[in-house]
Amino acid sequence: MSISDLIAKVLEGQPRAVARAISRIENQTPEAAEIMRAVFQKTGNATVIGITGSPGAGKSSLVDKLALQYKNAGERVGIVCIDPSSPFSGGAILGDRIRMSALGTDKNIFIRSMATRGNLGGLSRATVDAVAILDAAGFQKVIVETVGVGQDEVEIVKTADVSVVVLVPGMGDDIQAIKAGIMEIGDVFVINKADREGVLRTQKELEALLGLAHRPDMWNPPIVKTIATESRGIEELAQAIQSYHTFQRQAEGGRERRLAVARWRLLELLQERLLSDLMKSDGTRDDLERLAGDIAEKRSDPYSAVEVLLGGTQK
Amino acid sequence: MSISDLIAKVLEGQPRAVARAISRIENQTPEAAEIMRAVFQKTGNATVIGITGSPGAGKSSLVDKLALQYKNAGERVGIVCIDPSSPFSGGAILGDRIRMSALGTDKNIFIRSMATRGNLGGLSRATVDAVAILDAAGFQKVIVETVGVGQDEVEIVKTADVSVVVLVPGMGDDIQAIKAGIMEIGDVFVINKADREGVLRTQKELEALLGLAHRPDMWNPPIVKTIATESRGIEELAQAIQSYHTFQRQAEGGRERRLAVARWRLLELLQERLLSDLMKSDGTRDDLERLAGDIAEKRSDPYSAVEVLLGGTQK
Repeated sequence: MSISDLIAKVLEGQPRAVARAISRIENQTPEAAEIMRAVFQKTGNATVIGITGSPGAGKSSLVDKLALQYKNAGERVGIVCIDPSSPFSGGAILGDRIRMSALGTDKNIFIRSMATRGNLGGLSRATVDAVAILDAAGFQKVIVETVGVGQDEVEIVKTADVSVVVLVPGMGDDIQAIKAGIMEIGDVFVINKADREGVLRTQKELEALLGLAHRPDMWNPPIVKTIATESRGIEELAQAIQSYHTFQRQAEGGRERRLAVARWRLLELLQERLLSDLMKSDGTRDDLERLAGDIAEKRSDPYSAVEVLLGGTQK
Repeated sequence: MSISDLIAKVLEGQPRAVARAISRIENQTPEAAEIMRAVFQKTGNATVIGITGSPGAGKSSLVDKLALQYKNAGERVGIVCIDPSSPFSGGAILGDRIRMSALGTDKNIFIRSMATRGNLGGLSRATVDAVAILDAAGFQKVIVETVGVGQDEVEIVKTADVSVVVLVPGMGDDIQAIKAGIMEIGDVFVINKADREGVLRTQKELEALLGLAHRPDMWNPPIVKTIATESRGIEELAQAIQSYHTFQRQAEGGRERRLAVARWRLLELLQERLLSDLMKSDGTRDDLERLAGDIAEKRSDPYSAVEVLLGGTQK
């Protein structure tokens, strides 16, 4: 298939073309830039929902149920799942395929896991690009689910229109939960597994924290209680998401947020491009291996090695 | 103080000089490279322990108690805490100062929080550099604690000599815990809050998972049960860490691991340097702002904008 055919099929919303386009983006093939240039202008129609929270909070179930809720309302839903597999082995861990088979046969729901590919990074960039492809392909809702909770994950979720933070009862007894950096990004909070002991306490503590937090956009984040495994609270969650999305479209801060996201995307891509341009040369790759060996044996240090790679003074 | 005085005082182990050196590293001042070049050759004596796990697992208490255990054995302990504050606001969230005052007055325990500084990243690089400074300053144990669990955090913890993954009872009932990408990096596992319901079940599930995992170094990761708030199990944890460290020093895989870490450090630093060199020019920074605005308003896309920034064809 030619690249213009692929782009045309993506814009028609064909799942197979979407999957193929995302693979090219992920693998940084030469056509990636062409695809993204064509696709980018067609974005902006989907509601992008970022969902984050600790491992064990039941995010996958919640995302699956939310996706079904949207599907039953007649919408097409894309799910992009960020999987922090080991940066050294590069391999994905386990499972996830199980889930694919449960939801994935439906042509109105598209699921894709994104994993780290070696040392050169680019996961954040690939993820936001995959979201843009789904948006351009006419998926009305795109859900970005993070498995981990860290720097990169927080950054990616911030690029969504609506950020949802998922907690479980019993987490709130630990100051860690506050420090996790996920509190200040939440537009909507979910207490999942709300049939467990300690829900009220978690809710009170969360309310107290949200009372302390300063939100420049003056939005008061709602707290939704769910039991995802029993499909309870999902409709309320969808409503809370919709409320924030409506609010945010009218708010003054919208332009500023879009600008911050654009700046972040540009810097991510720039950094990746600079490194990959440098690594195109066989000589540089050989130098890198040799210098890494020198560092490992303490014959050199990373700072001196970088000078050598950038063609500075040889030490 | 001159830079050579600062380096000399760092190598003598003076806490104030160590703090100042880490600040220069973190802020990427021009002297950073000089400090690191001098310090790097003196590293390799400390045992570096990476500790990760979900928010709410009680990592801070565990790290504090482990540090006290080492201190009571007559060792100096450095703690570096990675705090995933919001990448957009750039500010740290709350607390952490509380903890500093509890442990920090002791000259044999040094605590430092590292936080994201704006869009340019560099947190991973700054963290491993801070660890090197503490190592060179004669701290026998350096503990790296992550608040989040994500891409960056997993990468950083992998650079440690011994990686410890902290779980709590009740997490194991969710497949999420497996997928969090933290399973395969653990050399030692801790089930903290071991007085809670469900310890046995979590232990069984963890054992089953570890049975499935393939470890090229043939190490069988021990599972230690702790109640950090009551200082229980801490000695056993210290012993498990020591066992792995001894094993790893003798193992064949040691050189390979050091090489992977060296390669990763080099690429991290290289990427940061490439971007910061480009951003030194006022013109480029102005272009970046203008292009970010164009992307936000969909007059351009990130891929075309990067071409413009790299001096390619203007669209």
